[in-house]
Amino acid sequence: MSSSTKPPSIGPTLRSVPERRYEPVSGTWVVIAADRASRPHDIRTAADSPELESCAFCAGREDETTPAVATWAPLSSSSGEPWQVRIVPNLYPAFIDPSETLPLEFAESKSSKSGQPSRGYHDVVIESPRHVRRLTDLSQEECHLVFQAYRERLRQYATDPEIKVGLIFKNCGSSAGMSREHIHSQMVGLPFVPTTLQTELDRSQAHYSKFGTCLFCDLLEQEREQGERVVEETEQLIAYCPFASRFAFEIWILPKKHLFSFEDLANDSLSELSELMQRLLEKLEKQLGEPSFNYLIHTSPFDSHRKDHYHWHIEIIPRLSQLAGLELGSGIHINSVPPEAAAALLR
Amino acid sequence: MSSSTKPPSIGPTLRSVPERRYEPVSGTWVVIAADRASRPHDIRTAADSPELESCAFCAGREDETTPAVATWAPLSSSSGEPWQVRIVPNLYPAFIDPSETLPLEFAESKSSKSGQPSRGYHDVVIESPRHVRRLTDLSQEECHLVFQAYRERLRQYATDPEIKVGLIFKNCGSSAGMSREHIHSQMVGLPFVPTTLQTELDRSQAHYSKFGTCLFCDLLEQEREQGERVVEETEQLIAYCPFASRFAFEIWILPKKHLFSFEDLANDSLSELSELMQRLLEKLEKQLGEPSFNYLIHTSPFDSHRKDHYHWHIEIIPRLSQLAGLELGSGIHINSVPPEAAAALLR
Repeated sequence: MSSSTKPPSIGPTLRSVPERRYEPVSGTWVVIAADRASRPHDIRTAADSPELESCAFCAGREDETTPAVATWAPLSSSSGEPWQVRIVPNLYPAFIDPSETLPLEFAESKSSKSGQPSRGYHDVVIESPRHVRRLTDLSQEECHLVFQAYRERLRQYATDPEIKVGLIFKNCGSSAGMSREHIHSQMVGLPFVPTTLQTELDRSQAHYSKFGTCLFCDLLEQEREQGERVVEETEQLIAYCPFASRFAFEIWILPKKHLFSFEDLANDSLSELSELMQRLLEKLEKQLGEPSFNYLIHTSPFDSHRKDHYHWHIEIIPRLSQLAGLELGSGIHINSVPPEAAAALLR
Repeated sequence: MSSSTKPPSIGPTLRSVPERRYEPVSGTWVVIAADRASRPHDIRTAADSPELESCAFCAGREDETTPAVATWAPLSSSSGEPWQVRIVPNLYPAFIDPSETLPLEFAESKSSKSGQPSRGYHDVVIESPRHVRRLTDLSQEECHLVFQAYRERLRQYATDPEIKVGLIFKNCGSSAGMSREHIHSQMVGLPFVPTTLQTELDRSQAHYSKFGTCLFCDLLEQEREQGERVVEETEQLIAYCPFASRFAFEIWILPKKHLFSFEDLANDSLSELSELMQRLLEKLEKQLGEPSFNYLIHTSPFDSHRKDHYHWHIEIIPRLSQLAGLELGSGIHINSVPPEAAAALLR
């Protein structure tokens, strides 16, 4: 099921001059170049989906996946489903369970110039027993349970002394790297802090040392004051298109109160978050058809001593154009939709 | 003209355990996870091409592009073509010419919290008057001229005191961000050193301070010693699939002698380079159909005082799978083709 819609009109804009903006969390530059949206083939909307294959993620085929590491019962006993959410180790893992014994030839053949086994957890969160594709296909309660499952699995990672940090991400649509259409996310538990997070930690620590405040708290305060990029505020959360959005229609969700770790959230916060996420994805679908997108949940390492400077957050990244040579070669992202225009369309 | 071929067989491999490798130039981690190649939809081959439209890059339509900033005469007067290579400012620039006057409202409306005009050069190198797509469609002489054109335009950038560095890149195939199929590359001249290059400079400087040697010289010596990832050596150049290849079939080209800047190359070096590039792209096409790919030419900033530690190089990056949430969220690249297997297929 793929649909096709025209790219949204972003309306008249004065910003015909490409504008360079600094993104303080990653320390990189972004160029907002609205005129580029009129280039051939720049913005593509609507995900093309891989064909529906016999799906190992559907209820009744549990023996076709690796055995579940966690399972949540159906929300209603009358649904007839055996479960509501399952977490299974990825069949094609990028990281292998620290408790697993390695094949002998791997241990023996490696010299000091070689790689090392890639230890860690790599899980798939199967978010529904039904063959649906999007969070917006779930009920509010079902979506809430998905976010609870994320939290519980993170808490399990945190009990393993070898694991330093968890990352939760969703690849939805083939332009976002999705390999199966049945609704799912992925989680990794890593024995080291990866570059992207380490850069954020270094930069937020430096900001804290200099100003005595949290970089993220300062950024969200600035976005609230300026207002024009805010999409929605709830009691505890804010969603906005960041000033230096790397991607067209990029949205960040932050807790308004300073909180460093996702796994500490209470049920009421998760409920508010999952409802906000569903509304934001609905808005993106309304403007862009069914865009491919990723979302990423960034949270503090488990063993951080100081938490004053980091702030958990979610990045929603629509994948409307390809990352090309300029992005890969320079780290500069080119975004052809000003975040002010994106936010106006999404409010 | 698009073709479709099966992904290459990478043969039996012992590496069923995903392996983590450190990439010292960018300071990031790569996971080589060969088993993932059997996932659904992981490796795609053969570029789908945008429809052939009326092409503004073809000879005879020069008035449909911005005026050329440089033009090279046809190699043979009997060809009947008006030119062989043209460089024109990008019609949809991400950077605008430093000499251009900005619209008044842009200058007036900006507060200190705002962006700044994105100054710089953003050029398109139209590499043939004929409507062909790939460097392998050019004669050796024509390809040589393309590399000479890159060099000459870089030398022009270097004379502008506002411009710190140049980057040359090609987006070939729609998965690589190509927006027009007529053979072309892009060049940017930037008034600041972008993150990716700054990281390389910082890391190569640190290596030099610690060991007194060039990081790149050390890496290429190690690749020569180990041999299994070398694709080809010419008199002056080496091409190999790096130990920590981020992308399947990624190839780096380095001068074997320590040289920091591309724009200093003599004609014979450029000739050797362009022939090597054509051979490497032919080999990729033979194995992968007509894969989308980027290549990036990394060269030293123009005004660097110390050049001992940097080493110009080219990265060829096939775009066989999408960058997904794990790459975007962590900076860790997952590569499902071990570089040893890729090099063996490309030799």
